[in-house]
Amino acid sequence: MTADTPVPSDGPLVAELSEDALLARIFPLLPVGADTHVPPGDDAAVVAAPDGRFVVTTDVLVEDRHFRRAWSSGEDVGRRAAVQNLADVAAMGARPTSLVVSLVMPGDLPVSWVEGLARGLAAECGPLGVGVVGGDLSGGPVVVVAVTAHGDLAGRAPVLRSGARPGDLVAHAGVVGRSAAGLALLEAGRADLDRALVDAHLRPVAPLAAGPLAAAAGATAMLDVSDGLLRDAGRIARASGVRIDLDAAALAADRERLGVVAGELGGVAERWVLDGGEDHGLLATFPADSPLPVPFRVVGRVGEGSGVSVDGVPAPARSGWDHFAG
Amino acid sequence: MTADTPVPSDGPLVAELSEDALLARIFPLLPVGADTHVPPGDDAAVVAAPDGRFVVTTDVLVEDRHFRRAWSSGEDVGRRAAVQNLADVAAMGARPTSLVVSLVMPGDLPVSWVEGLARGLAAECGPLGVGVVGGDLSGGPVVVVAVTAHGDLAGRAPVLRSGARPGDLVAHAGVVGRSAAGLALLEAGRADLDRALVDAHLRPVAPLAAGPLAAAAGATAMLDVSDGLLRDAGRIARASGVRIDLDAAALAADRERLGVVAGELGGVAERWVLDGGEDHGLLATFPADSPLPVPFRVVGRVGEGSGVSVDGVPAPARSGWDHFAG
Repeated sequence: MTADTPVPSDGPLVAELSEDALLARIFPLLPVGADTHVPPGDDAAVVAAPDGRFVVTTDVLVEDRHFRRAWSSGEDVGRRAAVQNLADVAAMGARPTSLVVSLVMPGDLPVSWVEGLARGLAAECGPLGVGVVGGDLSGGPVVVVAVTAHGDLAGRAPVLRSGARPGDLVAHAGVVGRSAAGLALLEAGRADLDRALVDAHLRPVAPLAAGPLAAAAGATAMLDVSDGLLRDAGRIARASGVRIDLDAAALAADRERLGVVAGELGGVAERWVLDGGEDHGLLATFPADSPLPVPFRVVGRVGEGSGVSVDGVPAPARSGWDHFAG
Repeated sequence: MTADTPVPSDGPLVAELSEDALLARIFPLLPVGADTHVPPGDDAAVVAAPDGRFVVTTDVLVEDRHFRRAWSSGEDVGRRAAVQNLADVAAMGARPTSLVVSLVMPGDLPVSWVEGLARGLAAECGPLGVGVVGGDLSGGPVVVVAVTAHGDLAGRAPVLRSGARPGDLVAHAGVVGRSAAGLALLEAGRADLDRALVDAHLRPVAPLAAGPLAAAAGATAMLDVSDGLLRDAGRIARASGVRIDLDAAALAADRERLGVVAGELGGVAERWVLDGGEDHGLLATFPADSPLPVPFRVVGRVGEGSGVSVDGVPAPARSGWDHFAG
């Protein structure tokens, strides 16, 4: 147990329950889902794929890498694990249908934390009709939450990263920089300064409905902004063989939102806006004459060339996040 | 690094490569799959679900819980992670189509180990036309391999655990007790005594094709034997509201196969046959007049009542494996 692990709440620890007893506590908390033919409890679940295809993505959260138990409740981690996977489904233009969860946990984890995790998954999935259709539990030295999410394209072509064309508009739905600013607040011990930004880090809110809307509106490329606006714009630019020019003025309100906190912490609001990850907004390109679906707003233009620029000034290339460095 | 971790092989460690560089080494090793519409590299993959449904299951392997690096190569772990998930798909009567992998690993893991893991996944998936269609990488204190596998039912109803009826035959495909005997050999430091049994533990071979064949032949219930014959038979008995009576004589060859090793180690061959897990054979029930598909063989009968018996003698109820006890 690390120094900043909170004092366990009352109630049993994971090691004090059998796996069956633990499952009996978790199962009733999880939503079945509108597309679930065979729910959990057999060797596998069966889920509808109405158009004869399914979208699938997987993302893992590891304690002390992606979250700290001192800062994140089980419910926070459940919400974040769901949202980051559902956002990847939405970024293909698909409606999420189901997810499965593999959960590794130390024996001294309070059962209430695991119940919180299940509630967090349910809070994100339930209202969307997404089922939590399977899972596996294991002991291990730290909490690991590996989620796989699935979605339905409703007969549409998936929106890839590779379809952006010169002349397209670049549009964004969701927030930028808030998760990074929230993390900076937590690291500085100043969570009190702007609780909404801290919450944006602990429980990001992704514009999931905007994914299928963008696909229906003719989006030519799209991705989930998980590693920062510049990095992820660079991925569309690379996959599509185009240049993406962002409009600094279009991001002025985002910078302004973070200005007070940046001033207090000695941070730079513009860096959070351009490089902050894990907000899970959607970045998409649309033909110039497309009406943009709500809540997309224009943040730039696609041009000939390569790389990403801001107001025409090339931004240095960002590599992907590096989970092993340092 | 624990005392029994092998000396790292030559070559770089995971921490010495960027995530992009590591992915560039792994990707080319993985099979695309016959049912893959959109391969890895975007926010999500797209996979065919020909009959408008897909089967989905997830299972996680954790270092020092499910395997030790001193005993298992990366390729062994990749094979086992694939097989245990593909067996769950087959146990529904489905043909596996795709899997995704979340991989957590310590920075001091040799890159060659990860390449081995990818080769192991590919060795099991490639020949079946199963694609490895997505993944996520993270650092962490131990290796964690979380696999989610998908399959296609080809229009058939899934074979659940709940369909066994009194009068049905109980049949098994695959081996029993060999993984447990192999583990006992490793724990005793006597791997030399019967390398085939050790291999049965490190790289179980599941009768994957037998799953869809059983479904087509009218199997009334089926599951993957991952926690031992008695435990898993008990699951069918419970879900179906029947009694399962196993025929000890039908398992004589299995006991005999383990006799020498049991004698040397002071083990009990019958316990391995009845309680040994992780062989990933298929246990199914069929109407008494069904011709059994190869390689199923009759190992018992379904009767009225509840629980599991051997030659009519009730076996004490087994609980599920407990991953948190001890």
